[in-house]
Amino acid sequence: MAKALPVSPLLVPIPEMPPVAGVRLATAAAGIRYQGRTDSTLIEFAPGTTVAGVFTRSLCPGAPIDWCRAALKNGKARALVVNAGNANVFTGRAGVEAVKATAAATAELLGCKPRDVFLASTGVIGEPLPYERLTAALPELLAGLSPDRWHDAARGIMTTDTFPKGARRTVMLGGTEVTIAGIAKGSGMIAPDMATMLCFVATDAKLPAPVLQAALKAAVDASFNRTTVDSDTSTSDTVLLFATGQAKHDRIAADAPGSAVRGFRAALTDLLLDLALQVVRDGEGAQKLVRIDVTGAVTAKSAHRIGMAIANSPLVKTAIAGEDANWGRIVMAVGKAGEPADRDTLSIGVGGTWMAREGGVVPGYDEGPVVAHMKGREIEIAVDIGLGKGKATVWTCDLTHGYIDINGAYRS
Amino acid sequence: MAKALPVSPLLVPIPEMPPVAGVRLATAAAGIRYQGRTDSTLIEFAPGTTVAGVFTRSLCPGAPIDWCRAALKNGKARALVVNAGNANVFTGRAGVEAVKATAAATAELLGCKPRDVFLASTGVIGEPLPYERLTAALPELLAGLSPDRWHDAARGIMTTDTFPKGARRTVMLGGTEVTIAGIAKGSGMIAPDMATMLCFVATDAKLPAPVLQAALKAAVDASFNRTTVDSDTSTSDTVLLFATGQAKHDRIAADAPGSAVRGFRAALTDLLLDLALQVVRDGEGAQKLVRIDVTGAVTAKSAHRIGMAIANSPLVKTAIAGEDANWGRIVMAVGKAGEPADRDTLSIGVGGTWMAREGGVVPGYDEGPVVAHMKGREIEIAVDIGLGKGKATVWTCDLTHGYIDINGAYRS
Repeated sequence: MAKALPVSPLLVPIPEMPPVAGVRLATAAAGIRYQGRTDSTLIEFAPGTTVAGVFTRSLCPGAPIDWCRAALKNGKARALVVNAGNANVFTGRAGVEAVKATAAATAELLGCKPRDVFLASTGVIGEPLPYERLTAALPELLAGLSPDRWHDAARGIMTTDTFPKGARRTVMLGGTEVTIAGIAKGSGMIAPDMATMLCFVATDAKLPAPVLQAALKAAVDASFNRTTVDSDTSTSDTVLLFATGQAKHDRIAADAPGSAVRGFRAALTDLLLDLALQVVRDGEGAQKLVRIDVTGAVTAKSAHRIGMAIANSPLVKTAIAGEDANWGRIVMAVGKAGEPADRDTLSIGVGGTWMAREGGVVPGYDEGPVVAHMKGREIEIAVDIGLGKGKATVWTCDLTHGYIDINGAYRS
Repeated sequence: MAKALPVSPLLVPIPEMPPVAGVRLATAAAGIRYQGRTDSTLIEFAPGTTVAGVFTRSLCPGAPIDWCRAALKNGKARALVVNAGNANVFTGRAGVEAVKATAAATAELLGCKPRDVFLASTGVIGEPLPYERLTAALPELLAGLSPDRWHDAARGIMTTDTFPKGARRTVMLGGTEVTIAGIAKGSGMIAPDMATMLCFVATDAKLPAPVLQAALKAAVDASFNRTTVDSDTSTSDTVLLFATGQAKHDRIAADAPGSAVRGFRAALTDLLLDLALQVVRDGEGAQKLVRIDVTGAVTAKSAHRIGMAIANSPLVKTAIAGEDANWGRIVMAVGKAGEPADRDTLSIGVGGTWMAREGGVVPGYDEGPVVAHMKGREIEIAVDIGLGKGKATVWTCDLTHGYIDINGAYRS
């Protein structure tokens, strides 16, 4: 079923992931769908842990998303249970039963409320989750909990990711150094699985849930929401941030302004962007990581939309796969974004060379450096709209035969 | 440069195209980019011909689009000049000069005003159009004009289309039978060309320009705007409708309501849908034509948007290429459309078999007939949202290795 995929040429090695105070992790092979690998992950958080979450905008989300959204209202968490191999999406009443039973069993073992247990599932859609296998693995998971198992957890949540993804930052908060650590999965896929992006982050900072939620929302907007692989949105996309409160820093009030945690927010954004780019680097069939800098738009939001129109254009992405600096297709993508743009003030550059400027080809434009740049693994596209001061950067990958191979395969 | 592409397996033969009173056509090989084929087309219309047009929504359109939009204000036409091989897009002042010079030269030969000459170009972007070659070919084009050359014209406007596209309808109007005939090109592409959709339609009906424009707008909304190959929008998309007024039917006033030309509008819509589906059948790398019927949405507009979200989803399109009835990906696409939808009222069927209904797999669902249907050339997907009475049908093609081959090729 899970045909072994070649490891992405854009791989970055997972960094050292030392413990985060108040966090213990474990994985087990529950045999939910995959054989011979871990597929179930338990992360336990110290009492008093607060939580924030951002979820898919899909109007047809999976049962675990519904569960997490409801649980989030309490703002407290003691555990996260993740399974790979079955997304528990479009499973009707059985899906609801599965999340209730899993949360109840975990809560009983940990001595907490079911509402303190967060859940995420990734894998095949439309098949009932054999949750008894998951709950049967809980004692083993509990026994295996250790602060040192971040790498195991990063592997346990993978579906057809070709490498495990993790990142870690430290930052000063209220006079003390705190740690933020996270893992992510996506955007590999096995037919008929859905590419789902899951990201779980923990910090030893002590932050009230509203402060945490505001920080997470802003950080996701500036990271995951600036990346795309193929414009499709999973029914299960999830980013959860847990704050164990073990660090001994000055108290942060629930109504503290964003500026009170500016450094923390910046570090969190940086960490999420790191993880988001790891996901793009492992995009289905990706051979090149593409950065698109849009400047001169009428607003930052307009720049973001123009950037995403370029990043999601199949014609732009196939041209990049072909190592062709086809700026005509970039003009096309700008034109279809629906945002203010003017052909005659538009400039387009690749790898630091401006190719087209103010409505025409740059006179005497030398294709040499551009051709060389396009052969690399990391491609930089610059688009200046020439109308205002709005700017945004987004990232994508190229569209290759590998994408068709992975996503056009028969289910088997 | 133009690597010969295999003819689409979804080809439909071009029908017989007898003359339309008041229309003469000619083609020539002007050597604009291609060698050994016709690349320039002149269509001459009788004095008194009215015209309507619908153009790309791109905010970075080509110079011929600007020209046509301005010329359309007069509502009159005597000629159409089309070249293949160069799109005259992103060519700055040179592009404006090219359209002015071509229109002036044509007008002088025909004894009309430049504003009566309509222009369309398709091909490479960002290279100045060598319009002298086009104007040099005008005398040959003029000499070659004949009412019998519709097939030649259908071939002359092709870029990497793998078959010529035409359609013809007759309909009663004001007590007389009138003819509507049209040709189209798209959506093949050669690197670095842009897939451009061009469609030119002529009728012998005598219709004031406002009536014609309203009819064309409605017909395009119900045909071309319901189809997609890859979600990208060309800078040159053009549909022009010319009415020569040679048919001797009852007079239609300029302020006649749509109902006065109901039959004509229906025939026009049917013809444009025929041409639009021919374009999808010739989509880059297309192996399957896909029809998506959305019912039960809150409004028709909502149904249309949901249909287009499915039709543009790379994950749905690659699954179809793999002959995999992956309804999980259809759920995903419905969920990301941003339109009202409810997982628990959603039903999905393929080839007449409902696979998923009301939030779960249909009990005892037999995959056999669905698997057989997916192996065919024409795929039917039905999605019932279960919320209202809005419905819409859209068409697309699958996403295959052929698409990557065609669009990822180096420029050379």
